[in-house]
Order: sequence, then C-alpha cells, then structure tokens
Amino acid sequence: MPYELHYWPTIQGRGEFVRLTLEAAGADYVDVARGSQKGQGIAATLRRMNAPDLVHPPFAPPFLMHGKRTIGQTATILLYLGPRLNLVGKSEASRLWTHQLQLTIADVVAEVHETHHPIATGLYYEDQKTEAIERAKAFREQRIPKFLAWFETVLARNPASSTHLVGARLSYADLSLFQLVEGLLYAFPTAAERALKKVPHVRALHLGLGSHRRLAAYLGSERRIAFNEDGIFRRYPELDA
Amino acid sequence: MPYELHYWPTIQGRGEFVRLTLEAAGADYVDVARGSQKGQGIAATLRRMNAPDLVHPPFAPPFLMHGKRTIGQTATILLYLGPRLNLVGKSEASRLWTHQLQLTIADVVAEVHETHHPIATGLYYEDQKTEAIERAKAFREQRIPKFLAWFETVLARNPASSTHLVGARLSYADLSLFQLVEGLLYAFPTAAERALKKVPHVRALHLGLGSHRRLAAYLGSERRIAFNEDGIFRRYPELDA
Repeated sequence: MPYELHYWPTIQGRGEFVRLTLEAAGADYVDVARGSQKGQGIAATLRRMNAPDLVHPPFAPPFLMHGKRTIGQTATILLYLGPRLNLVGKSEASRLWTHQLQLTIADVVAEVHETHHPIATGLYYEDQKTEAIERAKAFREQRIPKFLAWFETVLARNPASSTHLVGARLSYADLSLFQLVEGLLYAFPTAAERALKKVPHVRALHLGLGSHRRLAAYLGSERRIAFNEDGIFRRYPELDA
Repeated sequence: MPYELHYWPTIQGRGEFVRLTLEAAGADYVDVARGSQKGQGIAATLRRMNAPDLVHPPFAPPFLMHGKRTIGQTATILLYLGPRLNLVGKSEASRLWTHQLQLTIADVVAEVHETHHPIATGLYYEDQKTEAIERAKAFREQRIPKFLAWFETVLARNPASSTHLVGARLSYADLSLFQLVEGLLYAFPTAAERALKKVPHVRALHLGLGSHRRLAAYLGSERRIAFNEDGIFRRYPELDA
C-alpha cells in the first residue's frame, strides 16, 4: 500500500522534508497533488483535506494518507514514517532525540518563513518588504549562527558518529538538516556560506548526503521541484548580505 | 524519581504546557529553576543546559531531566510524559493525533510570540512596536479565527466526546488548548472573546477544564505564575481590538 503525500504541487516547502524521507528510503509513494491521474491533482488534495467526514482533519498540507490514517504536521508525519522506513533508531530515547532535532529544524524553517512574511502571511512580500529586510538581517546575524552552532555541537558530541545527528546511521533528522542547509544556501547564499565555514560537521553532513545514492538520484530527477519564490526558502537578494 | 522541569522561573511561557500536564496528573516534579535549594535556581538550569558533556543538549528551555534523560522541545517533552502520566491514549493512532494537535498549538504559540516580536527576538518590544501593531492585527483578524475554527471542527468531529480533543478522556492536548485559550484571553481580551463566541466546543472545553480538581488547585496556587509582559502571551492594549 503506497504512502500518499499531499502537498502543494509547485513548491518544496514543508512537504520536501517528507519527500526526502520517502525518497531516501526508496518508499513506494504517490505525490498526489502533482499527479494527473483520476483522483490526483491539487483539487483532489484539497477535497480530501476538507472532507466533512474526516475525523482527523489536517490544519494544512503537508499531510500523509496511509490506509485509514490521515496524518498532518511535518514532524508528526516523520514520527510515523521513521520506524516504518528504518530512518530512526529503535530505542525510545533515540526516537525522542531524533524528533527533538526535527522540531528544532521546524523552528528554523518557521523563522525562515518570517524573513519574507514578518507582518502577515496574507500579504504579498512586496507589501512587507521593508520589515522583511530588517527581520532577515536579525535572522542572518543572530539566528542562523545560533541554530547552526547548536547542530554542530550535536554532531560533535554524538559518540557514535560525527556525520550523523543520531547514532551511527542515517535518520530523518539528517535528511532534514540536509534540506535546511540546502534551503539556507539558496535563500541566503552569502550569509549561509559564511555561517557554514564555522560549522565543519554540519558542512560535512550536507556534503556527504549529497552523494547518498537514492537521494542523489532524487535530487537529479524531475521529482525534485526547484527552489522558487513561492516556497519557504526564497532568494530575494535584498534579504541576503 | 521526580521529573525535573527546567524553565525560566518568572514566566509561564512554553514551560507552562509542561507544568499543566505534570500538575493535572499529580506528578512528582521539581520546577528546578524556581527552587532555592542547593542545585536549584536559574543558574543551575543554565549550567545543566550548557554542560559540555551533555550528549543531548537542549536548544533552549524548557527541558525535562528524568533519570539519565534530557529532553527538550515542549512537544517532545509531552510526547514522553503523555503515556507515563496517562494523558494520552494507548494506540499509535491516538498518540500521533494528540501530537499533531499539540504541534498545531505550538504553531499558534509561535505566532503569538511574533505579534510582539515581528522583527527580532533580540530587540525590545518598544523598538518594533509599529510593526507589532500591524502583525497583531493580521493575527487577530485572520489567524485566531482560523486556528480556533479548526479546533472547533476537531471537537465537533470527535466521535467519542465533544469536550475532549482525542477520545473520551483528558489528554495533554486538551490541557494545551486550555492554556492557549487562557493566553489568548489574557493577551487579546477583546479579539479572543469575540472569536470564542463562534467556537462553542472550544469554550466548553476551556470552561470545563477550569473545574478539573487538580488543575483548579494548581491555578489557584502560588505555583501558577501570573501572566506578565515578559512571557509569550503579553497584554499590550495597542495590540488588541
């Protein structure tokens, strides 16, 4: 039974953290809103999300449907997929720690969104650009270095491996940190390159995962949507420095 | 073995979601940073958080120490405590759904923080007040109604109970929704009262929990820190309407 991922079809966004996990595991899945067959497409996704008989309605995409289950919130989806795709350790301690890392990555992602939408999600970027420039400055100068330094510490202290966040094997948190670095490099190339110089383990994890067989195949395929200015990581030159 | 909660000692903040869960369950716990005994106080909390040999360092408070475990991120702490304090169902489906609800509450809480700090966490409110007024307007008009309507739908669709988010018993998500409503009523009394009129099930859950025996005892005790303008929910009259 394939996993059904439901997410906006033209952006990486939060759905990309789920896509990477499914792709790295070689899982059988359908990216429903991107499909063109019957029962696919964004209208089908929204219809499912808004079905009045859905007992566990997601607040927003991404959500995963699998058998009778409907699961929303990126981190909850990964909590569900991790054990099934062998992308998390077996012990409770290792699962909680992996999840804690994921939630911290989610915090960074939320702050990235704030850099271009500091006033309102419902307004255009152009209508909050002045505030965005200020917000992005604080994010680049204070938040990127602080978050990356924390991930660097986590990698440096991992007794089993300094190229994995948890234990000695690939976890979904590694994939998410990879995506976070990809996104920062896209949105803030100057600031991210500068910050990455100070976190060699994070850089090594990012570089190393780039040659993961399945991941590399995915990244080179048409299934990988290019970064763009409708997603969460947006390249607005005035927000970088 | 008591649970050790580590959080800023003078605010409810994110730590309050953990306090409510511990209190409602009658759990044996120490609010370490608020203690005055040896090994307690905020200095002790920061020393523990920054200990160089901590393999699972939290990014920020709150964090929970329990035996050899150190767990950060509010939602991860609740994921750990839920089954131990009997504040979550037994099935995987019910645990995931409770967690998904918690993460959506966490999203609202993060947006509440943005209403008074839309530009930078490192700046004073007074230095971003103009932007805060704009941000808060969008939050009041678009986000509060949208989030509360979703929780209303969840309660209305729960086949087992319309006064509990999950199944027929109290879960940590119910306690968190209670706290969210408390916070919104404190920070945005006019907007929150208006929004709550449209979500009778959310109101009923909030009212009902106010008379939960252990919770009521806690809320009336000195252990409950009053809301204040250093926390996440802040009453700045210019941000309400």
